[in-house]
Amino acid sequence: MSHPTDTVRILGISGSLRKVSFSTALLKILARRAAPAVDLQVVTLDDIPFYNEDLDVAPGIPAVNALKQAVTAADAVLFSTPEYNHGIPGVLKNSLDWLSRPVFNSCFKDKPVSIITSSKAFTGGVRAQYQLRETLISMHAHIVSGPEVVVGTVHQKFTDGVFHDEPSLDFMLQSLTRLSESGLLRRGILA
Amino acid sequence: MSHPTDTVRILGISGSLRKVSFSTALLKILARRAAPAVDLQVVTLDDIPFYNEDLDVAPGIPAVNALKQAVTAADAVLFSTPEYNHGIPGVLKNSLDWLSRPVFNSCFKDKPVSIITSSKAFTGGVRAQYQLRETLISMHAHIVSGPEVVVGTVHQKFTDGVFHDEPSLDFMLQSLTRLSESGLLRRGILA
Amino acid sequence: MSHPTDTVRILGISGSLRKVSFSTALLKILARRAAPAVDLQVVTLDDIPFYNEDLDVAPGIPAVNALKQAVTAADAVLFSTPEYNHGIPGVLKNSLDWLSRPVFNSCFKDKPVSIITSSKAFTGGVRAQYQLRETLISMHAHIVSGPEVVVGTVHQKFTDGVFHDEPSLDFMLQSLTRLSESGLLRRGILA
Amino acid sequence: MSHPTDTVRILGISGSLRKVSFSTALLKILARRAAPAVDLQVVTLDDIPFYNEDLDVAPGIPAVNALKQAVTAADAVLFSTPEYNHGIPGVLKNSLDWLSRPVFNSCFKDKPVSIITSSKAFTGGVRAQYQLRETLISMHAHIVSGPEVVVGTVHQKFTDGVFHDEPSLDFMLQSLTRLSESGLLRRGILA
Repeated sequence: MSHPTDTVRILGISGSLRKVSFSTALLKILARRAAPAVDLQVVTLDDIPFYNEDLDVAPGIPAVNALKQAVTAADAVLFSTPEYNHGIPGVLKNSLDWLSRPVFNSCFKDKPVSIITSSKAFTGGVRAQYQLRETLISMHAHIVSGPEVVVGTVHQKFTDGVFHDEPSLDFMLQSLTRLSESGLLRRGILA
Repeated sequence: MSHPTDTVRILGISGSLRKVSFSTALLKILARRAAPAVDLQVVTLDDIPFYNEDLDVAPGIPAVNALKQAVTAADAVLFSTPEYNHGIPGVLKNSLDWLSRPVFNSCFKDKPVSIITSSKAFTGGVRAQYQLRETLISMHAHIVSGPEVVVGTVHQKFTDGVFHDEPSLDFMLQSLTRLSESGLLRRGILA
Repeated sequence: MSHPTDTVRILGISGSLRKVSFSTALLKILARRAAPAVDLQVVTLDDIPFYNEDLDVAPGIPAVNALKQAVTAADAVLFSTPEYNHGIPGVLKNSLDWLSRPVFNSCFKDKPVSIITSSKAFTGGVRAQYQLRETLISMHAHIVSGPEVVVGTVHQKFTDGVFHDEPSLDFMLQSLTRLSESGLLRRGILA
Repeated sequence: MSHPTDTVRILGISGSLRKVSFSTALLKILARRAAPAVDLQVVTLDDIPFYNEDLDVAPGIPAVNALKQAVTAADAVLFSTPEYNHGIPGVLKNSLDWLSRPVFNSCFKDKPVSIITSSKAFTGGVRAQYQLRETLISMHAHIVSGPEVVVGTVHQKFTDGVFHDEPSLDFMLQSLTRLSESGLLRRGILA
């Protein structure tokens, strides 16, 4: 049975380590806007080491184990990431390389996921999104259906740290609603 | 002017950190076979930190600077990498995120490059190769033309650390010859 | 309400026009094996014209309309396709360009889909699969989760038109079962 | 030896069949602007049938043979295409499926190529470009290095059939210059 209050727990994973990252900022804005119906916890990937199969043995790396547990505990996962060199940032892909294990039975199995990409370029990171979907599918995650969330020229949409493109924000919140519903649905099935 | 002996200097970059990595092993085998005409120096990416734009400032990270200089000094670069979760290993993509800077004027600009992927799966890592080409093109590297080098079920082709698939090895050496010729040609143009 | 017999109706779309296409043959074999629980109807794309937005007007092209109706009537869709030049065959992509319309509200919206790729190459067409997934996601189809079905060196697995790789066939039938279950589930939701 | 006037012959291939296609229009504008130094011949793919290996036999289909000859006769090829459903239009991919043959020895072998994508979406068709590059590389074409040419919201940049985004046009002409130089260089090598 789902929790009485039906608060949806979503893990927001940022693909950038930059302190004033746009990707991280978007997650934080969404967390504020969607609360309290949605409990969106934002994490960055600072503590995850480089994937090395030699290190991928019991009892595991504490930071990796903690991230796996956060994914497992969440009803759904929301990625927010830039695109680097026409692809996923290595930082983000590296964490997925850890989280994908054990193969076909990872914390992402059947987990509802959505993606936001943003970029200073007008193209908005759609190639990172393309690659990220393929990797998540290989991990048997459940990609929630709906329009892509792509934020082009993101640096022009922030002023003094405030995101002022309300139509884009509404669009992101609609995507978050679809993700939340998918998360609650899955929790109901598991309950 | 090129060096009298015309030894081609190739930097071999492995996409895996595993100590007995197949990708690294293939580079070392090629280095032995192709010497002395080709000086193939093999590097792994253990010392490169996670890309963070906040850290991408002068004078730069020593390990990153050293890798950039190694790319610059080489006539050509050969990547040998596994595929993780239908994509480039995060470890390798992360290093490219560093090496790509400054954008459009990086150490990879016009640099001849070739790729070997290998995998325990029979599919041999062609998706990592697909993604890697796109990233290298975004960096304006010169992808040397020719048949793809893809090693499927690579674990079955090593016995006690010895690679015993001679036709595959010949194929790799032919690819290395094309890469070397491209490297020498470019050195001639620059000279 | 679902049909009393609960026969699952699956549309099998072949990506090849070749008369003795391996892709078409695999669909026909699966149709025989999965009957009568599954009614797998196999179609090829001979009659679909080239997509031209000028022609994409009411009342529509009869062959295109018929294919749209076949998709709509099916509980789920199974693609079986070769890979041409590291991508989806133009023949198949062209049909999807028709079927995708109207955008975001096409016959593929929320439709369960699965993919089989096969190739004479050992790499088995995984890049066609990668691209096909992205296109289906853009159409808001529901990609059924599970291991990829990839048949490498497919020409060696047929003798006189008989497919004799039983483990691969079992694997395909398991994928078909997952697709069927997803199709029935969706029919139940719609009922 | 190259022709005394050194006019570069470039074949412009449009990925759209629409009569007032933006992709075709961009090629025609470039043809006017770049003449007479560049002889840019624009073709659409109306007459190319669907690829079917059964039909890919001597003496070949006349329309396909003519297109192969046009590619062979050109110093370089410029693609201008929309993106359909996150990928290459089926129409364009289908022609490449013909032109790719014979494998590894097609009319595109070592041929300099460049790509323009355009889209009503702000994302400008970069996924079509990503896929097109991979297919051209599989055919051993020579992708000319340089910044990607991507035209987003293309419908807003035409008024009564006139393209009025001069900075974009300059950018396209610079790309065309790089392509032309590559074409002349190759002609010199072959001469």
